[in-house]
Amino acid sequence: MAQPPDPFLSRYNGATRVIYIVGDPIAQVKAPSGVTTLMRSRGADAVCVPAHVAPQDLAGWCAAIRRQRNVDGIIVTVPHKFAALSLCDDLTARARSIGAVNILRRHAPTGGWLGDMCDGDGHVAGLKAAGLVLEGRRALLVGAGGAGSAIAHALVDAGVAALDLHDADATRREALADKLRRYAAGRAAPLALGIGRADPTGYDLVTNATPLGMTADDPLPIDVSRLSPSTFVSDVVTQPALPPLIEAARARGCATLTGIGMFEAVRDRIVDFYLD
Amino acid sequence: MAQPPDPFLSRYNGATRVIYIVGDPIAQVKAPSGVTTLMRSRGADAVCVPAHVAPQDLAGWCAAIRRQRNVDGIIVTVPHKFAALSLCDDLTARARSIGAVNILRRHAPTGGWLGDMCDGDGHVAGLKAAGLVLEGRRALLVGAGGAGSAIAHALVDAGVAALDLHDADATRREALADKLRRYAAGRAAPLALGIGRADPTGYDLVTNATPLGMTADDPLPIDVSRLSPSTFVSDVVTQPALPPLIEAARARGCATLTGIGMFEAVRDRIVDFYLD
Repeated sequence: MAQPPDPFLSRYNGATRVIYIVGDPIAQVKAPSGVTTLMRSRGADAVCVPAHVAPQDLAGWCAAIRRQRNVDGIIVTVPHKFAALSLCDDLTARARSIGAVNILRRHAPTGGWLGDMCDGDGHVAGLKAAGLVLEGRRALLVGAGGAGSAIAHALVDAGVAALDLHDADATRREALADKLRRYAAGRAAPLALGIGRADPTGYDLVTNATPLGMTADDPLPIDVSRLSPSTFVSDVVTQPALPPLIEAARARGCATLTGIGMFEAVRDRIVDFYLD
Repeated sequence: MAQPPDPFLSRYNGATRVIYIVGDPIAQVKAPSGVTTLMRSRGADAVCVPAHVAPQDLAGWCAAIRRQRNVDGIIVTVPHKFAALSLCDDLTARARSIGAVNILRRHAPTGGWLGDMCDGDGHVAGLKAAGLVLEGRRALLVGAGGAGSAIAHALVDAGVAALDLHDADATRREALADKLRRYAAGRAAPLALGIGRADPTGYDLVTNATPLGMTADDPLPIDVSRLSPSTFVSDVVTQPALPPLIEAARARGCATLTGIGMFEAVRDRIVDFYLD
């Protein structure tokens, strides 16, 4: 029976390179089509393949895939971003400081895995694409967990002059602050690291890196009544697509970036990582 | 940038099931598009993914993939068809007798691998599709190696009354004959197993399961001057697409099946194995 021509399948064969996305569960991810489409649009003969691997099987799976010769890399998603760190042969400076990875690629000398964490970089790329200048600016980051840690490092890389951290868990906040102090030590420009509060007054950027907003009756992560229209507001929440914080910020005239916007920018960064 | 709609990628995501094809090398295989297209045409949301794995890495890779939960099976190709046998948790009777596997799928009780060998079954399916009746007929099989062993078992399953084996290596020929005697012991109809020669006189089917014909100055595997037009001639050679034996047989008025025709029938059998 004649098949209609299929743009993907007409090129797909044994020479197509493989990039995995590994998680547990995996059925919900859209990267297989999204990342494959992006790679193809940039000329790569590659496919992003879903891998459902439980935490207890991750180390053995990564070791075996390292020896699968047509694999160029692994995108790491929930809940493996921390555990995958110790499975890498080498790490970028930011991944080592953050303590997590979301992308592994071949490390030229050994063929092993070089781990990087580009979630924060993707968020910052989304901010820049929306027109925000970060160099020399003041930022308030709410949430010092995995996403917050990645974004904080990317804000440091982007050259913010002041970064205030707000987290209900002071131990976690101080642990991130310590990492950032060491990480920023090599920077030419000084970094003022401080303790933030729910008050967004005086910041150029306010970022929510907590899950607040995913559940209908969550409180807002900051006091939006004090938001100035000149403050850019961003959020990591992807469900709902329009998080309550972003809705409130837009109502006050702020420029914004949603979690979905961040996610798209992260996907671009992932493809950059494999194709550059 | 807007992409044209892509029939495959519009459905492909983290819920798509994975079937691997593993070999060394792997760049030459067409199964990724061919098997994916067939599975999709039968309604399965599945993708066939190439895996380049060296012999020394096969056992570790199979063990790790066994624990990758979104994988339904592995198609095994050169040079792994023999080694993969010992990596299976269970085997079909024919795979056990042949001593090789070309497909692994989940074995329900344990989630481990059930190994089967359908190369010969595919060849026989191609013969039947071409109109050949095998039950009660006489066949000459040239070549008692991997392909010959698989085809011999399938001819026994198809009910041939007589099967003569021809191989320059008498030890290999007798080893296959011994396997076939044991394998056919449970059959209702008797099987006359004999030693064949290059003379194709009196056979309903003559099958070349040697590589003869792949290289330009190879001798023909049988004496074609004695071929009757009533003898069906088949070949496992896929390159060239029209093997010299098939060309000569057609010139004498014989019905034929080429290696490519066999290959397509094998692919159908593989998809049956995963989707039935």
